[in-house]
Amino acid sequence: MTAQTDQNNAKARHTLISVDAMGGDEGPAAVVAGCSLSAKLNSDIGFVLHGDAAALTALVAKRPELSGRCEIRGTSGVVTMDDKPSQVVRTGKDTSMWSAIESVRSGEAAVAVSCGNTGALMAISMIRLRKLPGVNRPAIAVLYPSSNPHGFNVMLDVGADVRADADDLMRFALMGISYARNGMDLSRPRVGLLNVGTEEHKGRSELKEAYDLIREREAEAGFEFVGFVEGGDISGNVADVIVTDGFTGNVAIKTGEGTANLVSLRLREAFNHSILSKLAALLAYPSLMRLRKKIDPRRVNGGVFLGLNGTVVKSHGSADATGVSAAIKLAAQLSENQFNDKLAARVAATLPTEE
Amino acid sequence: MTAQTDQNNAKARHTLISVDAMGGDEGPAAVVAGCSLSAKLNSDIGFVLHGDAAALTALVAKRPELSGRCEIRGTSGVVTMDDKPSQVVRTGKDTSMWSAIESVRSGEAAVAVSCGNTGALMAISMIRLRKLPGVNRPAIAVLYPSSNPHGFNVMLDVGADVRADADDLMRFALMGISYARNGMDLSRPRVGLLNVGTEEHKGRSELKEAYDLIREREAEAGFEFVGFVEGGDISGNVADVIVTDGFTGNVAIKTGEGTANLVSLRLREAFNHSILSKLAALLAYPSLMRLRKKIDPRRVNGGVFLGLNGTVVKSHGSADATGVSAAIKLAAQLSENQFNDKLAARVAATLPTEE
Repeated sequence: MTAQTDQNNAKARHTLISVDAMGGDEGPAAVVAGCSLSAKLNSDIGFVLHGDAAALTALVAKRPELSGRCEIRGTSGVVTMDDKPSQVVRTGKDTSMWSAIESVRSGEAAVAVSCGNTGALMAISMIRLRKLPGVNRPAIAVLYPSSNPHGFNVMLDVGADVRADADDLMRFALMGISYARNGMDLSRPRVGLLNVGTEEHKGRSELKEAYDLIREREAEAGFEFVGFVEGGDISGNVADVIVTDGFTGNVAIKTGEGTANLVSLRLREAFNHSILSKLAALLAYPSLMRLRKKIDPRRVNGGVFLGLNGTVVKSHGSADATGVSAAIKLAAQLSENQFNDKLAARVAATLPTEE
Repeated sequence: MTAQTDQNNAKARHTLISVDAMGGDEGPAAVVAGCSLSAKLNSDIGFVLHGDAAALTALVAKRPELSGRCEIRGTSGVVTMDDKPSQVVRTGKDTSMWSAIESVRSGEAAVAVSCGNTGALMAISMIRLRKLPGVNRPAIAVLYPSSNPHGFNVMLDVGADVRADADDLMRFALMGISYARNGMDLSRPRVGLLNVGTEEHKGRSELKEAYDLIREREAEAGFEFVGFVEGGDISGNVADVIVTDGFTGNVAIKTGEGTANLVSLRLREAFNHSILSKLAALLAYPSLMRLRKKIDPRRVNGGVFLGLNGTVVKSHGSADATGVSAAIKLAAQLSENQFNDKLAARVAATLPTEE
């Protein structure tokens, strides 16, 4: 391991973020550019960067705003997008991803951020950080653009595990509530359970069971259970927290993202249709940029791993500097709110740790 | 039952469509308006309308283009959106929905169209039309807007049943291929199996099994199996047929629709932002209308029930005249192609009828 001389400066910052600088399709340059953007926006943040020491030192040196705010941990290995999680857990100790999680485990950093392989990141996080008492299955939560007043709903699980039984779904609800309170400042979040219809008799049997389990917790845990919701409600304004299993949630967010991309493609085609429509596009440019900014998935980049002893933010694999910066902003926000301590307290207070 | 004098005229038309005129949120006026639109566009179509005889006779009388092309079957009952399917099957014999299916069962009409309660429509269709030999679980297929050259992908199941095992999924693939061939004129459709990742080791166990079962049929059934696909591919160009269970498919299409609606809402907001942006919207109006037409869900309104002895098209409950007309157009197209006979032949040829 190598350590820069500004190590103590980095640590003096209020919030220290551990960053896997080698994950992601865009490589360390995009990750360091994202750190640089964040550093400009928030003077409280310091970074521990994990990865190729020579490459990172060179990249950081080009960014004056990172001077004295970055510590670099040299690692030789990189987890690729094709690596199997089980393999990474056995042989990945020298990787930047492992090292990034280790910084959270040791208590040095508050939160870890990685753009790398989701399955591997979850596997390492499970092994090294361990599950919180009362949590059987961790979940990944995302903010999904919606028409509610905050502009986003919390949705989980979006892919930590392809299964979830009724008990898991109830715990996802409690973790999602904690996230909505701390990440979106909602005192009494509305919770919906994703199903194929809103009638109580519809859907799979584990959903009916989860419905009852969540309903039972409503009074003591201080949320509003709106019952079953449908796919259209993920982007709507009937619930702030959407609870589902990781298979359905993963398909749903990718379907939504793909559909939004298709609409954007068709919008561009519509404006490229003729000279007149191209002129209209010029005049409409500020409006279209406002739209783009509102629905830009990079602005809410970051799936949060919930239910572990430590917070991990998974950024999109193809994130550029803007995307990485959004993930770091989210990580800093959760860290400043002592989010994970509150979540742990909530789960422990509401649930028996043994069953 | 009442019968109009133009009964024989209606039957003389090339394609007779059985229409449940009472289903749908907009009532019989919207359904008759949809029939009227279709009648103008296609002189080959005749209609059997099921519902309140007096109301329908009055509505049809106002539409000269329907003169001599409609037969009216008077029924006293109506299936509401809240009725439970099991209840409708026991007590719904006098409803317009039941009567509409009965016209297909008797061979009088080629296809039935309803905007009513999906669960009840599937239950009546199962009981009265019965499943095709070789089909264990019928499916509902829709056309989903996509970036492929046809502009749409076939997706199934989107809600006939919340479950599907590996064998069902393989049969969904074969039925979807038949639909893509007959509904979209594709000689060698590309088939994808929906999962949370494209790697072979990912996802639920029944999906890995279905993967192998579909792969085995690839050569003899004349399609291209592209393997696992993800949510983003539903609107993409890697597969023409997306195979999934009815729970996941239902959540996915509703998520996509909700997301497209949210983008439209944000687009309107962006153009309402200032005087200048409102001016831009005026100039951009033709482009925005072109976009709207391209992504208008009413243009591809209609889920097709596959795997039954007869074709049933489920129109959106909130369909207006344009939506109903699109569903009728789809029904007529499938009928003219003898779609159901071809599908039955395909399933029977490829599969053992008993297991």
